[in-house]
Amino acid sequence: MALRVAVAGASGYAGGEVLRLLLGHPEVEIGALTGGSNAGTRFGELQPHLLPLADRVLEPTTPEVLAGHDVVFLGLPHGQSAAVAESLGEDVLVVDCGADFRLKDAAVWEKFYGSPHAGTWPYGLPELPGHRAALKGTKRIAVPGCYPTAVSLALFPAYAARLAEPEAVVVAASGTSGAGKAVKPHLLGSEVMGSMSPYGVGGGHRHTPEMAQNLAPVAGEPVTVSFTPTLAPMPRGILATCSAKAKQGTTAEQLREAYAAAFAGEPFVRLLPEGQWPQTSAVYGSNAALIQVALDEHAGRIIAISAIDNLVKGTAGGAVQSMNIALGLPEELGLSVNGVAP
Amino acid sequence: MALRVAVAGASGYAGGEVLRLLLGHPEVEIGALTGGSNAGTRFGELQPHLLPLADRVLEPTTPEVLAGHDVVFLGLPHGQSAAVAESLGEDVLVVDCGADFRLKDAAVWEKFYGSPHAGTWPYGLPELPGHRAALKGTKRIAVPGCYPTAVSLALFPAYAARLAEPEAVVVAASGTSGAGKAVKPHLLGSEVMGSMSPYGVGGGHRHTPEMAQNLAPVAGEPVTVSFTPTLAPMPRGILATCSAKAKQGTTAEQLREAYAAAFAGEPFVRLLPEGQWPQTSAVYGSNAALIQVALDEHAGRIIAISAIDNLVKGTAGGAVQSMNIALGLPEELGLSVNGVAP
Amino acid sequence: MALRVAVAGASGYAGGEVLRLLLGHPEVEIGALTGGSNAGTRFGELQPHLLPLADRVLEPTTPEVLAGHDVVFLGLPHGQSAAVAESLGEDVLVVDCGADFRLKDAAVWEKFYGSPHAGTWPYGLPELPGHRAALKGTKRIAVPGCYPTAVSLALFPAYAARLAEPEAVVVAASGTSGAGKAVKPHLLGSEVMGSMSPYGVGGGHRHTPEMAQNLAPVAGEPVTVSFTPTLAPMPRGILATCSAKAKQGTTAEQLREAYAAAFAGEPFVRLLPEGQWPQTSAVYGSNAALIQVALDEHAGRIIAISAIDNLVKGTAGGAVQSMNIALGLPEELGLSVNGVAP
Amino acid sequence: MALRVAVAGASGYAGGEVLRLLLGHPEVEIGALTGGSNAGTRFGELQPHLLPLADRVLEPTTPEVLAGHDVVFLGLPHGQSAAVAESLGEDVLVVDCGADFRLKDAAVWEKFYGSPHAGTWPYGLPELPGHRAALKGTKRIAVPGCYPTAVSLALFPAYAARLAEPEAVVVAASGTSGAGKAVKPHLLGSEVMGSMSPYGVGGGHRHTPEMAQNLAPVAGEPVTVSFTPTLAPMPRGILATCSAKAKQGTTAEQLREAYAAAFAGEPFVRLLPEGQWPQTSAVYGSNAALIQVALDEHAGRIIAISAIDNLVKGTAGGAVQSMNIALGLPEELGLSVNGVAP
Repeated sequence: MALRVAVAGASGYAGGEVLRLLLGHPEVEIGALTGGSNAGTRFGELQPHLLPLADRVLEPTTPEVLAGHDVVFLGLPHGQSAAVAESLGEDVLVVDCGADFRLKDAAVWEKFYGSPHAGTWPYGLPELPGHRAALKGTKRIAVPGCYPTAVSLALFPAYAARLAEPEAVVVAASGTSGAGKAVKPHLLGSEVMGSMSPYGVGGGHRHTPEMAQNLAPVAGEPVTVSFTPTLAPMPRGILATCSAKAKQGTTAEQLREAYAAAFAGEPFVRLLPEGQWPQTSAVYGSNAALIQVALDEHAGRIIAISAIDNLVKGTAGGAVQSMNIALGLPEELGLSVNGVAP
Repeated sequence: MALRVAVAGASGYAGGEVLRLLLGHPEVEIGALTGGSNAGTRFGELQPHLLPLADRVLEPTTPEVLAGHDVVFLGLPHGQSAAVAESLGEDVLVVDCGADFRLKDAAVWEKFYGSPHAGTWPYGLPELPGHRAALKGTKRIAVPGCYPTAVSLALFPAYAARLAEPEAVVVAASGTSGAGKAVKPHLLGSEVMGSMSPYGVGGGHRHTPEMAQNLAPVAGEPVTVSFTPTLAPMPRGILATCSAKAKQGTTAEQLREAYAAAFAGEPFVRLLPEGQWPQTSAVYGSNAALIQVALDEHAGRIIAISAIDNLVKGTAGGAVQSMNIALGLPEELGLSVNGVAP
Repeated sequence: MALRVAVAGASGYAGGEVLRLLLGHPEVEIGALTGGSNAGTRFGELQPHLLPLADRVLEPTTPEVLAGHDVVFLGLPHGQSAAVAESLGEDVLVVDCGADFRLKDAAVWEKFYGSPHAGTWPYGLPELPGHRAALKGTKRIAVPGCYPTAVSLALFPAYAARLAEPEAVVVAASGTSGAGKAVKPHLLGSEVMGSMSPYGVGGGHRHTPEMAQNLAPVAGEPVTVSFTPTLAPMPRGILATCSAKAKQGTTAEQLREAYAAAFAGEPFVRLLPEGQWPQTSAVYGSNAALIQVALDEHAGRIIAISAIDNLVKGTAGGAVQSMNIALGLPEELGLSVNGVAP
Repeated sequence: MALRVAVAGASGYAGGEVLRLLLGHPEVEIGALTGGSNAGTRFGELQPHLLPLADRVLEPTTPEVLAGHDVVFLGLPHGQSAAVAESLGEDVLVVDCGADFRLKDAAVWEKFYGSPHAGTWPYGLPELPGHRAALKGTKRIAVPGCYPTAVSLALFPAYAARLAEPEAVVVAASGTSGAGKAVKPHLLGSEVMGSMSPYGVGGGHRHTPEMAQNLAPVAGEPVTVSFTPTLAPMPRGILATCSAKAKQGTTAEQLREAYAAAFAGEPFVRLLPEGQWPQTSAVYGSNAALIQVALDEHAGRIIAISAIDNLVKGTAGGAVQSMNIALGLPEELGLSVNGVAP
């Protein structure tokens, strides 16, 4: 018996990618597709790559339209998820791809998002120690931010093994879909092709506290993250270059063992063989995260690098993976670890 | 009971894409992976996006290695398929992604390829009138060229309905993977990014006679094709802009009906609604072909445009689709119509 | 004594490129920079690549601001140039990068642009027979469209030599800057990278009648153009693939001679040696047009291909070249034939 | 009287860019163009964007061919410059775009380059304290590496003002031309488009000791650099994200003043206004370096970011700028600060 699944915010990049994955999920039947200003538009005009849904028409995001589903994915602007979730009832699995329920500290939320804190839901990064268990049976999931997914996976094993000092430096390059489908001049193709540019420099990016929140419990101490995101001339992908000073006496072997242990049995995370480094093309369209780690002995730093597809493992794939866990389905259902390359 | 499938030439782009699709095919078990100069290399170094095969080692392309499989895909340089196929026996389904068995006319083959003609196998473009039937039960399949796939799908309905004059003009843009993985200076990223360039201009491209061969029987008369391929700054995709003079009295309605009829029931070809035009991003990684057609009344020409992924519908997807037909499996098994976009 | 030059519409792509060239022009002093909704903005925020102008502030486009200049370039939306030009007086050289004064036939103008015809100015394509003379001493210049520049240069020699039938088929790929800086969803980087897409198919593109207008007088008969523009994943460049049936008896030698003669002495057009084909990267940022021509004897067609930078030879470079001619300056002043490659 | 200038290694990306700049340099006449395996080839086939040199033929790199020039630029593989320079005589200005004469410490050279140390020449980064003076009148110039140029410019003001701790963390993204024109599989367009990938991780990149060598004298103490280069899907450009712990008590105002002072009067370096960040597109083809700096008070780090064109300010532009200084010409001759954008 298929699960009936609705997607609110189906015209955006997150919503579209959730639908691409759900179309290949054997236990899912796609129900309502809703949008804001696009309601009433033929879906094929909005997401021309999703052929089976081309003749659907986008409905408005109302409780009536979203009623009667087993699962509802939310791809809404910040601040809108709480009201929609409330209207859905406690029996419906609500998977929020937005930020509203990610942060635990209300003061931090308010500082970075400028609106009242809505609460905290189980966090959809099952590879992070303790989180898979918390997702089982839940009816509410906060899907992590794309950068925090890439960065937390790259760094947590070093912190879990107590090999890294609690001051991380992260520079990450993201494909432009991470900025969403909103039409802004600096996101025009003419502007982004052939250009790398930083943004949110100096600690201002909203994903910074989410990284710290993920790493501190693993490290057993507060972790400060210096995070610089950059926009890269590609549609998808995040390459996160993360480093931290190695604790005194750390060896390359210890590092490697810590990472191998942290990802043992994980279906979607792969520690690459020594000498091979992650590249975003290898995870294009896939839910895999590729990880490599090295010890720079001269500089005394651990360098951990991850590559993910920001729309898959970084958003929609992580969401579906968490949905599978919540519902007791096999975790890999509907998800691929094979990138579309070249 | 799974089919055991080998891929000869597994380190190239065609071979890699065949494997990506086979990894998602429910009836297939992947057997031998073979290569030429790369034999002995860990597969993860050659195709880092295919995680489940990363620890395999590429074997040499020999009869012994390829023996014992139900299906063998060949992604070999031109001229090598005949010998390998012969060694495999008549019970094995051999799917040749190369050109060796595509052309019927030995003289044309020799003019364009400069080597002796090896013969002709059933042609893996099931949408072309008569071809699906010929593929059923066959043990030998010649996978079409990527450009002929895009162009034949765009033009055959106009010829089948006798609406177009037999002189077609085609300009097609292809992603760089169409040129293969051979390392040539003009294919360097520094050279292709930000650049469009033509090649094989003036009738010299080897895919030209294949297009004429496909269209003539449908048209009931010889068809001349003026074909100009161009290299576009993208990894994948073909956009084929095809035109021909409209026969006297042709109307836009007739055209539209002819195309709708030609593709009715086709699982992988979609005639777009009026006003919507194909874009290659919408078929990235998918086996779909998007088609649109218009009548330019001022110029008196039919303009038919198709978008495919050169590595999927144009190569590996067409190959798997034809394999499914040959083996009596559901035609869509292991294939998606959903593009990875944006 | 320097010419004082103003640019109206300085925040757009055409205006920015005019300024980039003028900054390197030895006889020019840059005066007013004006804009519409951007008036009042620091110029460095709008065009961060033009460092010497970074601290300027954009002024409103008014007669007062534009008064007192020797030359005024207009990079305005269609329909706004006539009023501005009128306010400037007959002694000022007005160079209109927009379409308002390109077409001679008022009915054709109204059909394609939907507004009243403003008139016709000398046409800034000096390489077209007769046009260089008409530009000398003029005080009004209509800068050609980018596609008509590329297509007219590629085809006129074949028509001038009476070697081509008067039905041309053109498929051209343009970089995204050709669509301007207006913020539209399909021009987002996420949408255009990795994608080729057609638009204005079937004769609807506004540049089509401009091509016919350019070629007919050269051919001595009306010329019909079937034109399909496509958007390519690159910021700049046009590759125009143009063809027409060869008149009976045309030889490859005749063709080559016709093209060599047509471009002899031209400072900015280069007929490439046989076997070498134009690529847009070679003209990136340069005012050169690269041309090659071939006879497809099997299809009986002439294939002529040109590559230009749409913002330079296709807009701002052609504008400056025409300004130089109008003012009696050396034609090449401030212009380069060296592309920025790779 | 023009300077007669030869370029050895004219078929590579560095050599080609030197020539592009020299073609616009008013005091230069281009003499011999030499190459290795390409000797004898028409130059237009190798560098199709340099039209005035298209009919030249590449000569072999021999003392006889290079004799009789005032200036010789070397764009040779590592290890070949010393012998060529020796053959040229002490009166000829030799500008080496390679690494041979950059490093002072022979042991470090041998560790990173694996060959005997050739010596040290005046270092062509005039903006670095003390270096402009050392370049005046010199007959030998070592052009800096592209990454060290970007990183040294971004960080030296912080060290000069004693505001930063001597452990820098640098993550830089480079366009593919930085890897040169050598044909390697991972540099194919199909591989690099749509992909970010790191390389030389963990301290292994040869530019690392050059950065430390530049910063230590400015800092007055040894500086350790943790450097991770990444390959970005664009032909040109470096975006260097550099950070270091701020020394106790450092304020944002101090930082800003230090940077403003360091670059005051520099013709090619621009500290951007607060809130505006460097982007590589703004320096495409230009010799400018754009810099911005911020203090992340939460993390206690200084973040300094630079954008340059790796082939211009990072190689050929820096080379021409240094040549101008060495010869007593105006420093800006033949160089532009205007990027080719979009």
